[in-house]
Amino acid sequence: MSDQLRLYSYWRSSAAYRVRIGLNLKGLPYEIVPIHLLRDGGQQRTEEYRRINPQGLVPVLQHGSRQLRQSLAILEYLDETWPARPLLPTTARSRQRARALALAIACDVHPLNNLRVLQYFEHEWNVPQPERDAWVQHWINEGFAAIESMLNDHLSTGQYCEGETPTIADCCLIPQVYNARRFGIDVARFPTIARIEQACLQLPAFDLARPEMQPDKPA
Amino acid sequence: MSDQLRLYSYWRSSAAYRVRIGLNLKGLPYEIVPIHLLRDGGQQRTEEYRRINPQGLVPVLQHGSRQLRQSLAILEYLDETWPARPLLPTTARSRQRARALALAIACDVHPLNNLRVLQYFEHEWNVPQPERDAWVQHWINEGFAAIESMLNDHLSTGQYCEGETPTIADCCLIPQVYNARRFGIDVARFPTIARIEQACLQLPAFDLARPEMQPDKPA
Repeated sequence: MSDQLRLYSYWRSSAAYRVRIGLNLKGLPYEIVPIHLLRDGGQQRTEEYRRINPQGLVPVLQHGSRQLRQSLAILEYLDETWPARPLLPTTARSRQRARALALAIACDVHPLNNLRVLQYFEHEWNVPQPERDAWVQHWINEGFAAIESMLNDHLSTGQYCEGETPTIADCCLIPQVYNARRFGIDVARFPTIARIEQACLQLPAFDLARPEMQPDKPA
Repeated sequence: MSDQLRLYSYWRSSAAYRVRIGLNLKGLPYEIVPIHLLRDGGQQRTEEYRRINPQGLVPVLQHGSRQLRQSLAILEYLDETWPARPLLPTTARSRQRARALALAIACDVHPLNNLRVLQYFEHEWNVPQPERDAWVQHWINEGFAAIESMLNDHLSTGQYCEGETPTIADCCLIPQVYNARRFGIDVARFPTIARIEQACLQLPAFDLARPEMQPDKPA
């Protein structure tokens, strides 16, 4: 029991999607605990859930009695705790690059387009929907242009972001591409990103982590 | 020459400040290359600098011929390349917690208050200064409340965020506290954060990394 893995997840959460990919790539079985981000004013905001994560965000990975927060810190923990099928490359240089690509999404694209940010614009500033969508598109386009350039400029880009095995960078990229499509971005404008997405989605680990495959996806 | 470290930095950049602390904690000498984020429409946006970092952001750490991007990925690289005076704890559990605290700032507070975001509000949406300030304060207050709770709820909080040695978490926390003060946040409302800040700033590694100590600080 104490080694059981339970993931507090929401089907469309990009950060939870990253961890689902990582768990699947490592072949670790886990139970999904759905947290509905929109129902009841957001189940992530309840006092009960704040005891699990004071940030009021998903995902949290419960490992035995430990509550692990922050998707990238969870992926690093998985790699250190179960070293087989690594999510990080072996050399310091390649690890740096994989992490930098992951963080370029996790710090510089995704937080700006998060649900709570869009809710702030709607409720505090009455920003109309088209302007909110333009905001989201702006940061994804700017982020993807930089990432596309970082992928094209580097010899170690392979079938995946860094080399011939999926890494933490791909765990972040694919959920962000999913979000980009939701907001009407033409992903074909970023041919290397589009090619890597196609390679990833052919793997069951990525396919089974998709929002549409989740138990809490609405019927 | 090939092992020389050059940091593309801006005195007030919170992400560059993190890396300055890390380099100082590890006792690694480095040269500062100032990139002025406001002068000439932002030196980080020039074609020349985009060749160094397609994201158009500071910091970048040049290590010999390698251009390393993303502050947290740089700190991990420093630790893997020069293991003495580690910036990460030793057990997987403590490492996870230190990284989660670092990411709670680097993903969920700082990106929302970045210069480019505030410039977007000003230039695209004509958001007045008081509303822009309220936005910044909102995310810092929300983030600090969660981090304060994560620090208070955990036995491994010590003199620093995780234990009795500064870690990657403190490298992120202290620059964010500096930003909080700039925006008029009463940091005393978060007593554990305030206590850790005081402990950190007594160390030369943190003191010398402060914006006011930088060569590109305006006279």
